[in-house]
Amino acid sequence: MAKEDMTDKSLVKKLKGRIKRLRKDLAQMGTVVQMPSVSPLAPAAGFPVLPVIDGVRFASGSAEVKYKDRDDVTLVEIAAGSAVAGVFTTSQTRSSAVLDCQEKLAALHKSGKTDEPLGLVVNSGNANAFTGKAGDGSVKAVCDAAATTLGTSAGNVFTSSTGVIGEPLPHDRIVTKLIQLGDELSTERAEASARAIMTTDTFAKGAWAEFVLDGRTVKIAGYAKGSGMIAPDMATMLVYIYTDAAITNGALQKIVSANNQSSFNSITVDSDTSTSDTVLVFATGAAGNTEIKSTASKAAKEFSTQLHGVMLDLAHQVVKDGEGATKFIEIAVTGAQSDAAAHTVGLAIANSPLVKTAFAGEDPNWGRVVMAVGKSGEKADRDALAIRFGDILVAEKGWVAESYTEQDGVDYMKGAELVLGVDLGVGKGRATVWTCDFTHGYIQINADYRS
Amino acid sequence: MAKEDMTDKSLVKKLKGRIKRLRKDLAQMGTVVQMPSVSPLAPAAGFPVLPVIDGVRFASGSAEVKYKDRDDVTLVEIAAGSAVAGVFTTSQTRSSAVLDCQEKLAALHKSGKTDEPLGLVVNSGNANAFTGKAGDGSVKAVCDAAATTLGTSAGNVFTSSTGVIGEPLPHDRIVTKLIQLGDELSTERAEASARAIMTTDTFAKGAWAEFVLDGRTVKIAGYAKGSGMIAPDMATMLVYIYTDAAITNGALQKIVSANNQSSFNSITVDSDTSTSDTVLVFATGAAGNTEIKSTASKAAKEFSTQLHGVMLDLAHQVVKDGEGATKFIEIAVTGAQSDAAAHTVGLAIANSPLVKTAFAGEDPNWGRVVMAVGKSGEKADRDALAIRFGDILVAEKGWVAESYTEQDGVDYMKGAELVLGVDLGVGKGRATVWTCDFTHGYIQINADYRS
Repeated sequence: MAKEDMTDKSLVKKLKGRIKRLRKDLAQMGTVVQMPSVSPLAPAAGFPVLPVIDGVRFASGSAEVKYKDRDDVTLVEIAAGSAVAGVFTTSQTRSSAVLDCQEKLAALHKSGKTDEPLGLVVNSGNANAFTGKAGDGSVKAVCDAAATTLGTSAGNVFTSSTGVIGEPLPHDRIVTKLIQLGDELSTERAEASARAIMTTDTFAKGAWAEFVLDGRTVKIAGYAKGSGMIAPDMATMLVYIYTDAAITNGALQKIVSANNQSSFNSITVDSDTSTSDTVLVFATGAAGNTEIKSTASKAAKEFSTQLHGVMLDLAHQVVKDGEGATKFIEIAVTGAQSDAAAHTVGLAIANSPLVKTAFAGEDPNWGRVVMAVGKSGEKADRDALAIRFGDILVAEKGWVAESYTEQDGVDYMKGAELVLGVDLGVGKGRATVWTCDFTHGYIQINADYRS
Repeated sequence: MAKEDMTDKSLVKKLKGRIKRLRKDLAQMGTVVQMPSVSPLAPAAGFPVLPVIDGVRFASGSAEVKYKDRDDVTLVEIAAGSAVAGVFTTSQTRSSAVLDCQEKLAALHKSGKTDEPLGLVVNSGNANAFTGKAGDGSVKAVCDAAATTLGTSAGNVFTSSTGVIGEPLPHDRIVTKLIQLGDELSTERAEASARAIMTTDTFAKGAWAEFVLDGRTVKIAGYAKGSGMIAPDMATMLVYIYTDAAITNGALQKIVSANNQSSFNSITVDSDTSTSDTVLVFATGAAGNTEIKSTASKAAKEFSTQLHGVMLDLAHQVVKDGEGATKFIEIAVTGAQSDAAAHTVGLAIANSPLVKTAFAGEDPNWGRVVMAVGKSGEKADRDALAIRFGDILVAEKGWVAESYTEQDGVDYMKGAELVLGVDLGVGKGRATVWTCDFTHGYIQINADYRS
């Protein structure tokens, strides 16, 4: 008996040692064994209370496209007389819904504002991408049903689909649900709409603004989904923004396109581009401000600034929900030959797997930044390059800075929100881009996705 | 007592359960906890027995640049009257050694073959990159010492350095070692030379060819290092090839440049470009064939084909030693608008983190291939695109192929060497590129490198 006791006790000791070693192995592999249910970079305050936008009503429900226990389709009605603008993926293999949106947007911009309502339908769970000619039929069926429900023409209805690709969209189930949703439209249901479009997102993303134009209070409310940048499977970036500002189609499009470059076109998670990326902005005019007709007026500039704030906030939230992300990284490039060159250099750094894994490892590896600058193809001068982590000067004049210590760099890298400054020293061009780190979590999510 | 026994026994049971779960977690995270000491894709036969190249002598030793217990510097002497050709990184921040090689190569091509020996010095452990003006001085010191040792001019000595960046090269230690190595030069010591240049490589990479030109036996022997594509830290790609063929500088350069496009320029591990990538080819002429003067002759074509075989073999070995790689993937693009367009599409697929993680997860996720084709920017027709895994037709005419079953795809993906065929259906352009999968091993190596 005594001997067996000893055996058990020594066995316990041995097993505890083994557990300790296994835990150490796991720790060395990163911190992703238990993937967090919500990104550690998610806004602490949760989804914001979005202001009601006069003229915009939302409804959401479950069409069981793929998920069984959550909303997966949303219908939005935007009042007659509204303006609309959009930007879309540049992918050569873009989805039926994107092609349909682009066609309708062009037609509406040509014909001018319509006196019928505009409509938006988004489903999650199935991207209706690479589904051949059948995909076009699905878009048409959904638009027809939404048009009937909203009492408008199918030409006024925009759609997006996000989820698995290559599988036929079960549009009959969406059509059935849309008819029911017509009775549930409400100005108060924006958050449910934001949740219905989520796929691999770990949190719903919303942003808003309220400001005064011509003595009238103007509101902007928007939401987005996206967590890879951007897989065609389940991580497409979709963005919908609503405002009660009065503005022409032409002015709205110009402002959205310009703002897009420094917001959604300046973020990257993994350098991949979805077949379905969509940004749509609707403006009802209910605020009663003098209609904005050009981009040059003071009112246009104020509106643009406020809209840019909402777009950038949503863009940052998409990066903060980047698959496996544990760090949010701002890359500020200055001293480039042009702003465009600075943007190219910024994205070369932001997309470099070696830079992103260094951030994941909290390794102040400025050599990888030099490498990424070099591979961008843009003009750089080895002996004029300067690199900063936050306020810390790391490298200058082609070598490590005299004042820099490795410990300063190591300490800085422990933060969750980091700023990398790169001055190329060859001109006045500048641009800022945002990305996240590249962790075991990304591999885990994307290597195991369909299995 | 009895109660305590029970406690111990139940504790043992509980601990065993915990170990089982931890092991499962580890297994789910990949198979990289114990990183293999040699890549699973390494050639089974090991380093080949390279043929002796008349006129080329090797010596290697330890200068303790960084490592203490292995060779880290190699000196190679190439007989007077030899031709030399090279291609280098296009990085805007390339190292002092690369800039020096480019300058000397241009001068030698202008002046013609020299009646002095050519020399090559390569060190591992320190890349002498981003070391300011001091880096240029280090290159000069090494070249001067090698020139003295070999009885030649410094202008005939080429150098490469690979290892950590941003730290001054301890060139004094290399200089001291070079003087000793002069007495140890031997035609038989190519393998030791190949091993001296390794950094994170898990195996030494060699390839050779032997064939007949004008009734004379011609030999080619080469070696390479590289395992990321390509970090400036420790994973730069360096390639040195020696032949006894008689050929002019001009013809050799043309053949090397052309072959480089379809070998070393057609591989990628992580899309990153080193500041030090170098390919140098030396031809002694000792074989006694009629000197090859143009690229059009039958002999030139045969030589080019044989050299290409050696270059491609080395290129494939670099991919097979890709950091964390468990799969070797050939991507054959056909039906593009041009060969250049096919190359761009191939690299867009090969560099996509989402495609590479799908391969890591043995997931036949052809949707990600469609995405990568779309983001390449090259012309594609959604409804003409065809995708194959090996001989399995997966998708055609814009949708999944009727004959395709997911199980076929899953079974195929279990292989270690895979072929992905993509036909764009818009032209006759074609190109093949090679890459590896993207695993937890890559993150582990690169997130923890300096710590």
